[in-house]
Formats: sequence, structure tokens, C-alpha cells
Amino acid sequence: MISRLSNNECKQLASLKIKKYRVQQQLFLVEGEKLVDEALRSDITVKAIVALEDWWQDKKQLTEKIKCLAASPQQMKQLSQLVTPPPVLAVVQIPVHPLQINDLQHKITIVLENIQDPGNLGTIIRLADWFGIDHVICSNESVEAFNPKVIQSSMGSIFRIKIHYTDLKLFLKEISKLQIPIMGTFLEGENLYTTPLPPIGVLVMGNESKGISPNLAAYIKRKITIPAINPSEQRAESLNVAVATAIVCSEWQRRNHWTT
Amino acid sequence: MISRLSNNECKQLASLKIKKYRVQQQLFLVEGEKLVDEALRSDITVKAIVALEDWWQDKKQLTEKIKCLAASPQQMKQLSQLVTPPPVLAVVQIPVHPLQINDLQHKITIVLENIQDPGNLGTIIRLADWFGIDHVICSNESVEAFNPKVIQSSMGSIFRIKIHYTDLKLFLKEISKLQIPIMGTFLEGENLYTTPLPPIGVLVMGNESKGISPNLAAYIKRKITIPAINPSEQRAESLNVAVATAIVCSEWQRRNHWTT
Repeated sequence: MISRLSNNECKQLASLKIKKYRVQQQLFLVEGEKLVDEALRSDITVKAIVALEDWWQDKKQLTEKIKCLAASPQQMKQLSQLVTPPPVLAVVQIPVHPLQINDLQHKITIVLENIQDPGNLGTIIRLADWFGIDHVICSNESVEAFNPKVIQSSMGSIFRIKIHYTDLKLFLKEISKLQIPIMGTFLEGENLYTTPLPPIGVLVMGNESKGISPNLAAYIKRKITIPAINPSEQRAESLNVAVATAIVCSEWQRRNHWTT
Repeated sequence: MISRLSNNECKQLASLKIKKYRVQQQLFLVEGEKLVDEALRSDITVKAIVALEDWWQDKKQLTEKIKCLAASPQQMKQLSQLVTPPPVLAVVQIPVHPLQINDLQHKITIVLENIQDPGNLGTIIRLADWFGIDHVICSNESVEAFNPKVIQSSMGSIFRIKIHYTDLKLFLKEISKLQIPIMGTFLEGENLYTTPLPPIGVLVMGNESKGISPNLAAYIKRKITIPAINPSEQRAESLNVAVATAIVCSEWQRRNHWTT
């Protein structure tokens, strides 16, 4: 059954554009056909689908399983954060994954300290998905993962990757106790391409402008660097954090899967 | 000598926020201490520095070499595209680099077809700089390199990398004639990690959503892919284009410089 989206409901959903209300209601919005489809195919809980009247044609199988709401173009505009409002969006429950440190024992895990740019976080979630990484652990100060820009740039991977927010100092202490290798990238460290890498472990990546804080660096036994070609004052000082994460994960998985 | 920025001059400079006027005047704006400093240290032509009255203290050596303008906070707000206007910005001439195909014979070059996101282009320019790549060749339809978001995300590398806009079909035809190897990334191709790579050549990367067009694919002899771990319907379908470019350049330069 499809019901009309009331103006009150619309107002309540539009409040989810703001982090405070996402946290309060434990809900977020997912915009556009492709992402809504990915949300429906994932394990995530979709609370409702909101779409234009027209969109509901031929969607009978959907209307039996889920709360379906028909919205006016004006209402879609109110709910959307895109320049061109999409015909459909989903109201999704923020997934909660209890962090079990033991689960990380035999895996590659990405740890992010204070990432601020939502595009960077979304891009890292997407590449984690590509490289078979299940968990991304963020410091409590990092940008919120259900920020619409993170969702857009994660391209659906946000529904598959388990994202946790925690105190990274305590987290790395626990990881050390379990003797899981801890790597991190620094401007000065062992050459990524020539240093031995353990097959599993956690990779710590730092804030966009400050890098990894001394606070966390103390726990990082394996400091690695991505060497520049012809480094000089006249070259880039660093790489974008999503790019650096990608390069390390690529080299790591290359050695695990494509060398003999 | 420092002169006051007149309201007329301010209006003219503010027009550089719009692509049409950047193209017309062949000028662009660079915001913030760090980028202005990088512009001054590069080979690029800085036409003027505009800064708040206070900023000009202790900048005597600068005022002898360059046109210096003092602006009010209100004027800086008019000129800036940032949420918090910076204390200083530079008016810079758009560099023109004639494209000499012969110059590319012994080099690694990045070729971008129809990249639309300015953050992606800026990030690719930054990583080109890191990996010792001198030229980035864009299709005429690509986002403009002097868009403020490209400049910000390139982090100063925009002043060092030579960026060209051209008809890529004609360009790849010329490259083929010179027998420079042409690689490109596709969802199906040779495994990047195990396929032999020539030490030099051009790397073609496609549009964010459509990839490389069939039009150009015909020229690409070496089709490569970055293999996913456990690919399945439940994994990311692709990688962000800047991330994919970084992974290929990293693997390429690893083989050129860090293997025996």
C-alpha cells in the first residue's frame, strides 16, 4: 500500500539533513535510484521508501514489504540535498555494529584518525569494500559516516562496510595486547614497496592536514611511507588521504594475493 | 608600493569566480597563505597579491617585485569562495603550455577523458606531482583545471604540472604513431599486478560514471584492471577515478624504481 507523505512527516524527514536529528532518530536518507536499490539489496534496515507518484508504477513487489510513501515534486525538493532532486529516496536505520576486537584478528582493518572531509571518508569506505576490508574504525572526532556527502561518495559501500566510532587510543591499546600488527603512514618511514608487510593487521591513517597524532603514533610499530619520485621542495608535500590509503591497501593485497 | 584595491578592480577580480571570465581574462584566483606561497615559488606568473591591510606588515620584500593591493575584509569576502575568507589571495595568469607530443616519448603521462568532479581532477594533479609525472592531458569536455575546487584539492601541484586540453582521439592517434604504449583501466582487462607494464607510456582514465568511451578504447592496446578481492554482487562495482589512477601509478613506479 502506498500512502501520501503528509507535510508533517515530510518536515520530520527533512530534519534528517542535520546531524543532530540523524543521531536523535538513528535514521538517515539515501537519495537516488541506484543507492536506494543497493540499500534494499543489503542487510541494512530500510524503514520507508519515499518517491514521486510516477515512480511507483510497476513497483508492486516493493509495496508489499516496506512502508511506501508518495511525495510531490515540492516535497522531494524539501528532502533532497542534491541540485536535482531524485525521484526516489529511502529512509534507512543507522546500523549499529558492536565492535568485537577479536573479529579483527585475522583481517586487514582501516583505522582513521580525525578524517574531516566527507568525500575522503566515502572514498575510503568504497575502496575498503573493493579490497575486501570489512571494518573501518574512526576516531570519535571524525566526520559522521551518515553525512549525505559520505553516502554519495561511498557509492553504496556504506551499506556493506561496518563503520565504528571509538576512542582510538584505547582501541590501539587493545589491538597491541592481541599482538595484531599496527601499521601507519608517515612522511618518514619504511619504504612501502620494499619493507616486509604482515599479511593482516590494522592500518592507521591520519587527519588530512595534521597526519597521525603523536598520541597514536606511539602505538604504531610499523611506520611506512609511500616514496615520492624525485622528492624536492618543488614537489607535492603529501598525498590525499584516500589516495594514500588506496595505495597502501593495493600494495598490501597485491602481496597477499598476487605474488608467489 | 601597496595600493588600495578599488571597488571597480574588486568587481573585476570577483568575476574570476566564473569560468567565462577566467577564460576571457586568462587569469584565476588562488586563495590562502599556503597556496599563494606555492604560486610565488613556482614558475607561474603572479600578476598581483591582494591582502588585508594587516597582512602586509613585514612583507616589504614582496612589495618590490609584484603588484600589491590592500583590501578590506568586506572586499576579501567578495573575492573569496571559501566559507572563511583568507587574509591573502593571488591573481595568477593561466599558464599556457604548447603540447609537444615528442616530449612525452620517454615519460609516464596521465590522460583523462571527461573527468567531471573538480575534486577528482585536483587530486589526480596532486598525485601526478608526487609520482614524478609532468603532464596531465584532459579531453576538452573535462572540468576546467582553474576551477577553485580543483586548485584547492591540487594543494599547489597545479602550479607545477603541465595541464593540456585537447581532442583525445587525435592525441591518441599521434601517440600511436610514435609507438608510445597506451594503457587504460577497464572493469575487465589484464590484472594490473601480474601483467607486464612498459616502463613509460600514457595511462588513459575514463569518466566517473561511464569509464573510457569506445571511441578512445580502440586506441588502447593494453587494457588493465585493478582486481577486487572477492568480487561479487555485494561488493563495490568500481573505484573512485582518482583512487584508481593512484593505484596504477603507484604500481607502475614501484616496478620502475623499487624492483630489481
